[in-house]
This record gives sequence, structure tokens and C-alpha cells, in this order.
Amino acid sequence: MAHRVADLPSGPLDFYRRKSSFNWKNMVCFIDGEEIYHFKQQIFRTLENDPLFRRQPGEDVPIEKKREINFLRMKQLFRYDFMTREELMSDPWKTVILEDCLGMYDWSLVAKYFLNVGMFAETVASSGSSRHSKYIEGIENMTLFGCFALTELSHGSNTRAMRTTATYDPSTKEFLINSPDFEAAKFWVGNLGKTATHALVFAQLYTPDHVCHGLHSFVVPVRDPKTLLALPGVLVGDMGKKLGQNGLDNGFVMFHNVRIPQENLLNRTGDVTPDGLYVTPFKDPNKRFGASLGALSGGRIYIGRMSLMNLKLALTVGIRFSATRRQFGPKVTEEIPVLEYQLQQWRLIPYLAAAYVLEHFTKTILMNFVEFQIGRMMKENSDRQAEMGREIHAIGCCSKPLGSWIAQRGIQECREACGGHGYLAMSRLGDLRDDNDPNCTYEGDNNVLLQQTSNYLLSLFHAKLHNGVRIESPFHTVDFLDDFQTILQSQFTARTVEECMDPEVTVTAYKWLVCFLLEESQKRLEQEKAVCMGDFDARNNSQVYYCRSLAIAYSEYISLQSFYELITDKDTPQDLRSVLRKLCALYGLWSLNSHMATLYQGNYLNGRKPVELVQKAILTLCSQLKDDAVALVDVFAPTDFILNSPIGYADGQLYKNLWSTMMQGSQVLERPSWWKEFCSDKPVIGSLQSKL
Amino acid sequence: MAHRVADLPSGPLDFYRRKSSFNWKNMVCFIDGEEIYHFKQQIFRTLENDPLFRRQPGEDVPIEKKREINFLRMKQLFRYDFMTREELMSDPWKTVILEDCLGMYDWSLVAKYFLNVGMFAETVASSGSSRHSKYIEGIENMTLFGCFALTELSHGSNTRAMRTTATYDPSTKEFLINSPDFEAAKFWVGNLGKTATHALVFAQLYTPDHVCHGLHSFVVPVRDPKTLLALPGVLVGDMGKKLGQNGLDNGFVMFHNVRIPQENLLNRTGDVTPDGLYVTPFKDPNKRFGASLGALSGGRIYIGRMSLMNLKLALTVGIRFSATRRQFGPKVTEEIPVLEYQLQQWRLIPYLAAAYVLEHFTKTILMNFVEFQIGRMMKENSDRQAEMGREIHAIGCCSKPLGSWIAQRGIQECREACGGHGYLAMSRLGDLRDDNDPNCTYEGDNNVLLQQTSNYLLSLFHAKLHNGVRIESPFHTVDFLDDFQTILQSQFTARTVEECMDPEVTVTAYKWLVCFLLEESQKRLEQEKAVCMGDFDARNNSQVYYCRSLAIAYSEYISLQSFYELITDKDTPQDLRSVLRKLCALYGLWSLNSHMATLYQGNYLNGRKPVELVQKAILTLCSQLKDDAVALVDVFAPTDFILNSPIGYADGQLYKNLWSTMMQGSQVLERPSWWKEFCSDKPVIGSLQSKL
Repeated sequence: MAHRVADLPSGPLDFYRRKSSFNWKNMVCFIDGEEIYHFKQQIFRTLENDPLFRRQPGEDVPIEKKREINFLRMKQLFRYDFMTREELMSDPWKTVILEDCLGMYDWSLVAKYFLNVGMFAETVASSGSSRHSKYIEGIENMTLFGCFALTELSHGSNTRAMRTTATYDPSTKEFLINSPDFEAAKFWVGNLGKTATHALVFAQLYTPDHVCHGLHSFVVPVRDPKTLLALPGVLVGDMGKKLGQNGLDNGFVMFHNVRIPQENLLNRTGDVTPDGLYVTPFKDPNKRFGASLGALSGGRIYIGRMSLMNLKLALTVGIRFSATRRQFGPKVTEEIPVLEYQLQQWRLIPYLAAAYVLEHFTKTILMNFVEFQIGRMMKENSDRQAEMGREIHAIGCCSKPLGSWIAQRGIQECREACGGHGYLAMSRLGDLRDDNDPNCTYEGDNNVLLQQTSNYLLSLFHAKLHNGVRIESPFHTVDFLDDFQTILQSQFTARTVEECMDPEVTVTAYKWLVCFLLEESQKRLEQEKAVCMGDFDARNNSQVYYCRSLAIAYSEYISLQSFYELITDKDTPQDLRSVLRKLCALYGLWSLNSHMATLYQGNYLNGRKPVELVQKAILTLCSQLKDDAVALVDVFAPTDFILNSPIGYADGQLYKNLWSTMMQGSQVLERPSWWKEFCSDKPVIGSLQSKL
Repeated sequence: MAHRVADLPSGPLDFYRRKSSFNWKNMVCFIDGEEIYHFKQQIFRTLENDPLFRRQPGEDVPIEKKREINFLRMKQLFRYDFMTREELMSDPWKTVILEDCLGMYDWSLVAKYFLNVGMFAETVASSGSSRHSKYIEGIENMTLFGCFALTELSHGSNTRAMRTTATYDPSTKEFLINSPDFEAAKFWVGNLGKTATHALVFAQLYTPDHVCHGLHSFVVPVRDPKTLLALPGVLVGDMGKKLGQNGLDNGFVMFHNVRIPQENLLNRTGDVTPDGLYVTPFKDPNKRFGASLGALSGGRIYIGRMSLMNLKLALTVGIRFSATRRQFGPKVTEEIPVLEYQLQQWRLIPYLAAAYVLEHFTKTILMNFVEFQIGRMMKENSDRQAEMGREIHAIGCCSKPLGSWIAQRGIQECREACGGHGYLAMSRLGDLRDDNDPNCTYEGDNNVLLQQTSNYLLSLFHAKLHNGVRIESPFHTVDFLDDFQTILQSQFTARTVEECMDPEVTVTAYKWLVCFLLEESQKRLEQEKAVCMGDFDARNNSQVYYCRSLAIAYSEYISLQSFYELITDKDTPQDLRSVLRKLCALYGLWSLNSHMATLYQGNYLNGRKPVELVQKAILTLCSQLKDDAVALVDVFAPTDFILNSPIGYADGQLYKNLWSTMMQGSQVLERPSWWKEFCSDKPVIGSLQSKL
């Protein structure tokens, strides 16, 4: 199929494209395959052809306008219906690709669409029952518009502490929804600022006997679908400007004795009889709570993928810029592309390697999640299903930090690597930084989430140490830990730079690292428990340098391991193996390099040689990959229209594209509207000094 | 004077303020002193009382409006005349404080003011002669408005490669200014987008004999001061939106045979006789070039200070938020401030330590620079003056990367540490990140500048090795290097956490580190020279892990050393020494911790103990400082009006301030203007599928 992949425009980037060691079209075929490639192109082309999706790089759009245009574009997605409801259910990977493509265009658009169609409608479908199907139909024909209201002003991470109440009144068979005060206002709710007519509200359910049965979800109408005016008792509004993603209207809502019919309780996990008795299929309230929040896990895994898309966009800009920007050279008369500098290679190419590793890793774990979800839908109750749930939770809780932080740092590095021109809004690097930033925060602060991962690993380790339980898991990411004693006796063995560039060396080192940090964290936790007042303090005091490092090392290991399996897979094409192997080695060494002190500390490394080898291997790989960098970026770059950054367009005409975009800007050559303020109102120096 | 420092409002922050180990007002007196404290308050109060300076946290202001309001505010600064021209000359420290205060309000304002009054007028004064005094007068009465035009579209770092030409025409005694093509357009020129009437243009000077005499500066009129319309032959305009600092109108300009009188050449470093002969007081063209760019050095040093101001603002928000935001706790019923968590402390408090160290460091080196400038103005031609110039250049070239990167990372950490609320535009953390970002780029990309510093150190080392020249410098930052052989034989000696917390341990470790990296860099450079084609490649291939690390380590060392001198100074008040000592130790250990692998590599560290000690010392110091953190922030926080971040106000009423700011926003509770787009135009699913 490679011949069906469209050529890229010729220009200054040809210099590097000709030097590439592999055929970029073959790589596209290998990573995406024919169907996905054409699906992507179809989406990109459709958006480009629709004037509603037109935009100017770096344009200054007021927030109100951003929200309007984003709503109109979202409505257009209903009309295009890129994937039918059936396709969405039957082809989860294609759904991911659709989100990827729309997200590369604008994450606000994806969020607005999927919070309504996904988070609201799907949660109603999965947490409710047949009595709620009218809401799902309402979403489909847009007679209503949904949002998901969990977080409150004073509570985010601590979800159990939410204070909104839903009190059942048997006399009218209604729930009364109340916000005790503004600190309990629902907050950060996407779509609620301007658009939502219905909110999925998480509230503490009270029965008439004043007993609280914990957090449940309710469908609460908030605005009149005929007028978009707030309903009585509902104080709903727009949270205002955010750092990014301003096409999405995040909102707040406070309820004052808002009455909703009893049936608006999503009753999968608990219900109230007409006369006010609480009934639940769950015996353990903790399990019920877990089940009602379970629907959130998928989002976390996808956030890692969102971050990757941002990283790809930034790298497309950063690498193409570096290949076309020339500055200095060995001779005064001839300047060389800045990509030729070791420093520039070292700043950017490891992120390029990370993008390739994360492409495969996010795909792998999303497919793992799909396997888990299928089991859930089949009402699979086996131990394996439960173990899968624990493992996928642990993976999701570290893959989001891994992806979002690499992207955030990578975008910043691209911004700086593009110098001043990266500081122009038209470079899009600012928007990427702003739009990626919340990936570090929503669905759980990165640092807080990492604790979930380390808790998982520590509990497996604890079971092994105290009960001799074998460490293994459905997706096998932890199986190696069972050999921790043997692994901990190993040492770094590479003796040459070439050996160091073998990815297996790094994979092996990571196994040791995770085992070491696991044992150290466990010891640290025991020590802290011995001196602390309780588990809460002991756990908190074991995070920095221990549990946190453990979770990060594990996330790096599993992403590296999954890519290592790819490059050693017999189905991986021969002509791509060499470059993929280099990317694997570079990612591994670059990640490992931030743990060198730990490797020395635990005696895995000794003497001065290992650091030198690792560093030299990193620089060698960067240098070997610099001629492939442009082609590697061509593989994942979207069309210029989607990229929307003239300093990174495929034709490599850096200055022409920049200059013409600038000239197309608003009022570029006009004098300012306030010119008279300069020309006819001169300040008298010191005339206001008496006011000091 | 402590009793004259105004109290802060009582509220939730009292909890920590009461636990502080020192009197914050005494710290204000120690750091600022009475005159500076009152001067700051006067500036803050004046801006707050002037409606022109009013603003709403998180408001969405269009660019055109930002530029207008910034111009009007800048004009108002002429009227307030906080410091007269004489004061500006006689009290450089107070000038810095004025810039600090205005910058904390908005860096666009400072830039607009100082690019005109400072960069333009002062460079004309220092590089021109008496014939140019009319321009300085013009700036003072605002009959003209200036800008500084060096960078071109395709050249930034490589200043010598600028392509704008100034060709002398003896027949009319004029220069013809030309831009050969748009890639040579002057670019990134602050004030040029909308306002400037005159540009200080750097161009290659050609005499009638077609000889190029290199880069010289010329005053070129670009807009008519009576109309602000572009002059004939001048294509001048606005570069459009940037990531931040959008109050400043950066612009571009192209010249087509623009004629200026011969006298507009700033002739301090070179002149042309009426009949077209080039004359210069410099024999060596390199020296002349250095002298004409010398005027730039001060800016670089001040950028480190700008970054510090941004860091202070972000920390004020981050620490006060963390002290008032409660989430989870040992008991379900009681939540604790997130500042109580080890992880939160470790994320923020090292940056707090850095802010204190950088406060003293930036002051020290700015005063060094003043000493150097005085010598320059006195036409001091001694060797010491030349040595001072080299040292101050080396310090400036690493202090800017040090400050701007710490600030950039610190702001990002504060953003994430404030969770979702840090993502609200009203937190100001986004603006701080955007406004600080160019500090990494302008006046030299950080990574490129670091090469200047390592070159300086390597040249001293080379002179020592090959000619036995003693290593010493006027400001003594390199004197220790003369003992490098002895130092390189030392080893880490701390055996307990307490010993590790002695700042001297870290200072000593840094001396070893700089010596080690210096020797390694020198060796690396020799090796590369042996295999490379020339110096250019050898130097480029010795940057990563060698020269770059060397320059960074040196910058950390000299900042740490200067603070260490402060805490051991007999004039430093006894009651503040304890907390200052902890800050010093924490900054040192935290910075050193990123070099642990190098310390192991060079055998300065051995075995597992040192890492544990250093890490434990860092966490112990964070924990000891957490009760002081709010007071430490109170010392440098500006007034709430200047801070402009409701989640960080001095009364600590986090939620009240956030909520009321949100409610004061524009159209918060209104339905959107486009409500009919939802209510009466429903999309038909799939109606546009034929267009796919």
C-alpha cells in the first residue's frame, strides 16, 4: 500500500529526506495500515474542506467567540458522523484514531463532543437502566446536552468528600438536590459553562431516615433546552478563561432545593424504593463506590494518548524548524541547519524516540483496556477479570503521568529549540503547551495517581514476601518481579558503546531498577510505619525518592518493554528494524540516565566507565538518528492544515510560510486605532508626581 | 524599622504565620531596608490608585486593546516619573527595584518603557556623540519613540551575519539603508509593531569603494511622528500575537533605499568622513564589534532578575494555595493543608530556597556589573577592567539560563501543584509561564549562552595548564580553580544527615564538581580536536555532558557561594541566620542532586550512603521549612493588587476570593449570545456524510 501514501511537497527538507535510512511510507503502513491511513486522511480532508473549520495560525480569538465556533464545529461532527454508533462500539481502535485526529485539530472540540456523547450518555447507559434511555436519545438528536459533574470547588482528588446532597422525599417521590454552600458548588464541569441542559451530578444520597448512603449519580436538568436559560433553583455559569482549551466552556453549578424525579437516580449500583428504603446489589459500600467511579478509568488511559498527539505536533514543528533554520557554520560564508548541532539533536531527538515508543505503548494498553472492558460488559466475574482491573488501573495511573510529563517537557523543549520564532503564537507551541497542561491534572493529579501504581506494586510484593504468592498479572507487566532476588544480584555488563546501544541492556537495567526501588520502598514504608502515628503518614513520607520513583521507573520500564517486544517481533518489517531499534535504545538510555544515581547507589553501576558509555551511546544514537529525524516526523505529522504552524509545514519553506502568515494577520501594516494618543497627547514628565 | 512594615490581613494563613520560626518583618528589613521597602510600597500604591492600571484577574483582553492600554500606562509612567533621570543614573539599585515592581505588575509595561528610554536612548547616548542628543531629547518629551533593531528574520544568535546594509553616498552625504530581501527584515523589534517612530538599526556599513566595514548602528526614522504612518520606503508592521507579553508590540521592518543623513550613524566605534573614508579608533575589527555589542550585557544580567520576580509571584500563589487548600487527612473527618504532604513540600520548597538565593545572587552580580560600567564610563583601560568585562560576561551568560530555567520550571511546578485551580487564567500562573518563557531565549538562547561561560572557564584553564597563569578574577568567582589539583583529590566527607545539612558541605562538593567538569571538558575538547576537522566541530561536539554541564555547575556554584557568604557574614542578623542557613543548604543539596551521577563517576561519592544522606537531608530541610514557607513568601510577595491572583491573596481566603472573582467575570451567568444555535438548529446525524 506504500504507493498509495501521498508524497510530501518538495523543498528544503528534501536534503534530510534523501538521507533517511528507511522509507517513511513503509513506516506509515507498518504503524497505521491502509484503513487507518485513509481514515485519517478522510478526516483531515473533510475538516480542511469545510469553511467552518478554517482558522489562521496565531489568530487572536475572544473566548466568547471560541466557545461559539467550537459549538458549531461540534454540531458539524454530528452531521459528518465520522463513525456511526455501531462502529464506535465495534471498533474501539478506530474510535481512538478519530479522537486523535480531531484532537490534533483542537482538543476543545473532542472534549465538547465526547463529554456529551461519551461521558454523559455512556455513563447514563452504563450506570443507569432502561428508564434512562430517553436521555441517551436526547443526546443523539441534541434535544438535550450533557455534562459530567463530579468535582467541587473545594474537593478534587478526594472524591469521597463531595458535599452535594440528594435527599429522597417519599411524599413526592423526588430527590432534593442541594449544595450546602459555594465551596460545594460543582466545579470544572466541561460543557456546563454555556451549553449543558442536563448534568450527571454526583451527590451523597440521603434516605428519609437521614442516613447517608454515599456518592451516587443523578441526572439533573439545569437549563431549559428551549431557551438555554437556567432553571429555578439552579445557579449555573461559566468559570471564565483557562490557560488553554478555551473552546470548552467549563462551568459551575449550585443547587437550591432542586427537585428531580426519583427515576433520575442512576440505579445500577444502588436504588431507593418509592417509600424510601435504600437497596443495593453491593454488600460492601467500598465496592459500590469503586464500581460507580470505574467508568472513569478509560479516560485516564486515553489522556496518555492525547499527550502523545501534542508531542507529535510539537516535534513536527521542532524538527522541521531545526532542519531548515540555519545559524553559524564551520565557514563564515556557509551556515548549517541547527539540527546538525549535537546540542540541538540531544534536546529534540530523545523526544522523537519517546513519541515512537509511546505510540506503540498507548496502543497496547488501550487494547488491554478494551479486553478488560469486554470482560466487564460480559459480566465476567473471574479472578482474572478482577486482576485485570487492578493491573489496568495501575498502568493507567502511571501511563498518564509518563505521557503528559514527557509531552509537557517535550513541548517546552521544542518551544525553546525554535528560539524566538517558537514564541510566535503562529508556531502553535504555546497553544500546545497550554492545551497539554491539564493532562497533568485532570482525572487525577499526576503525583497523586502515581501512588495508585506504587500501591499496586507494593501490595503484590507484600503478598509475595508474607504469603509466598507468586507475582504475575494478566498483561504480564509485573511477572519479572517474581525473580527480584536474582535480578537484584545482577550488574551492568555493557563494556562498549556498541553494547550499550543494544536495547536489551537497558531493558535489563530497568528490571533491576524497578526491583531495587520496590524493595527500597517497601523497607522505607516499614521504617516509617515503625516511627509514624499511622499508615497515612507512613505512606505520605515514603513517596519522594521511593514510591514515586518506583511508579515512574515502572512506567518507563513497561513502555520500553512493550517497544522492545515490537522490535524483536518477527512480523516487524526488516527494513524498519534498524531505525526502530535505535529509537528503542535511545528512549531506554535517555530515560535510564535520570536514574544513574540510583544505579550507583544500589551498586548496579561501578566506577566511571558506565556513565561515559551511557552518555556516549545517547549522543551516538542522536547523531545516527538526525538524518532520519525529518522522515520520522513525516510519518506521524498531520496535514499542514491540521498542524496549523507555518514554521513546521511539510514543504519546509520556513521563512516564506512565516512571512506570509504574518502578512495575512489582522491590521499588520495599519497604524494603531489609538495613534492620536501618541501624536497629540504628550505626557508632561513628572506631572503626576504629587500623586505619589 | 520592622514596626513600619504593614501587617498582613488575618485569615486562614495565620495558622502557618504563627508557626514561623522568624519575624518576617525583620527579614523585609534585612533584605530591602527601609528606603527600598517604602519605595516599593509607593509604586504599588500608586498603580493601585490609578484607574488606568485597574485589571481583573483572568480577564480576556484582545491584543489590540492590550497594546493600547499598555501604551497609555507607559505614558502615565512619564507623568509619575518615579525616578528622575538623575536618580536613574546615581542609584542603579533603585532603578532595578523600579523595574522589579513594574515588572511584577506587567513585563510588557517595563519592556515598552525601557526599550524606548533605556535601549534606544541610552544606546544612542553611549554609542553616539553630541550630534545625537536631539534624539535623546525627543525620547524625553515623547516627540519621538524609539526601538532597537538588531535581529533579522533569518538571523538571531549569529549577529555578525546580519544582512541589512547601510551604503554611504558621498554625493548627498547620506546613507542608503536596504534590506536585501524579506529574510533580512529586522524582526522581533519591541515597540516597532505599532509605536516606534525611530529605530536604532544595526546594518553592515559599506563605503563607496564597496568595502564592508561590519555592523554599525544607525538612527533610522520609520514612522511620521505626526501621524504614526510609515515613511516612504519603509515597510513596517506588527508581528502579531506572541505566547505572552502581548502588551508589547514587536514588529518587523524592511528598508528600500531609505536615505538618512550621514550624521545618523552612531559614530563612537567608527565613522565615515564626508567624502566616504572609513575611520575608527579601533585597530582590531573584533574589538570594535565587541564594543558595539557591549551595551547589551546589562540586559542579560537583568533577565535573571526578571525571572526571579516571576518565580516569586508563582511561589506566592503556589505556597499560599498549598497552605489553604485541604485534601484528605489521617481521619476521614479532618482534611489537612496540602502543604503538609512531603510530596508538595518537595515540589515547592526547593524553589522557595532558590528564590532567596537568587535574590541575593542577582543583586550581587548587578552590583558587579555597575562596578564594571563605572569603570567603562571612566574610560578605565586597565587590565583589571578588561578582566572584569570578561568575568561579568561569563557570569551574565550563565546567570540568565540559571534564573530563567529555574523560574520556568518553578512556575510549571506551581501550576501543577495548584491543581485545576492553577489552570484558571485568574491564577496568573499561565501568564507568568508565558511571560517568563522568552527569558530563556532573548539576548541569547540559554544553551548558546552557556558556551560563552564554558569558553571563559576553559580559556583560564588553558592558560594555567600551558603557561602557568594563575587563575583568578576581579570578582573572585574562579579563584578556587587555581587549586584544582588539590580539590580533585577531595571526597565527600559528610557521614550524617546533620553534617549534610551544613551548607559548607555542598559548597565544597560544588568546587570539586566544577573542577571535575572543567578538566573533563578540556580533555574532551582535546580528544575531539584530534579527530575532528576543526575547532568548530570539536567545540560543538563537546557541549552535551561536558561544556554545558560545566557552565551550569559553575552558575549553581557561584550563586550558592554568594549566598553562603551572606549567611556567614557577621552583619547578617542572628535571628534570621537559622532560616537563611536552611535555605542555603536546601538550594545547594537540591541543585547538587541533579549531578549525583557525575559525583559517582568521578569517585567523589562512593557506595550507597551519600545518596541516602543527600536525599534525607533535602526532605528534612523541606519539612523544617514548611512552617516557615508562608512567612518566607510574605517577605517577597507584592500587594494583592500587583499579584492579581485570587488563589494567592494575603488573607488566604482561597475559595471566597476565587468565587467572587469568577462572579465578577464577564457574562458569567448569561446564556450565550449563540443560544439559538442550540435551541432551534438541530443537526441531522450523518446529513453531511456524502461530503466525506
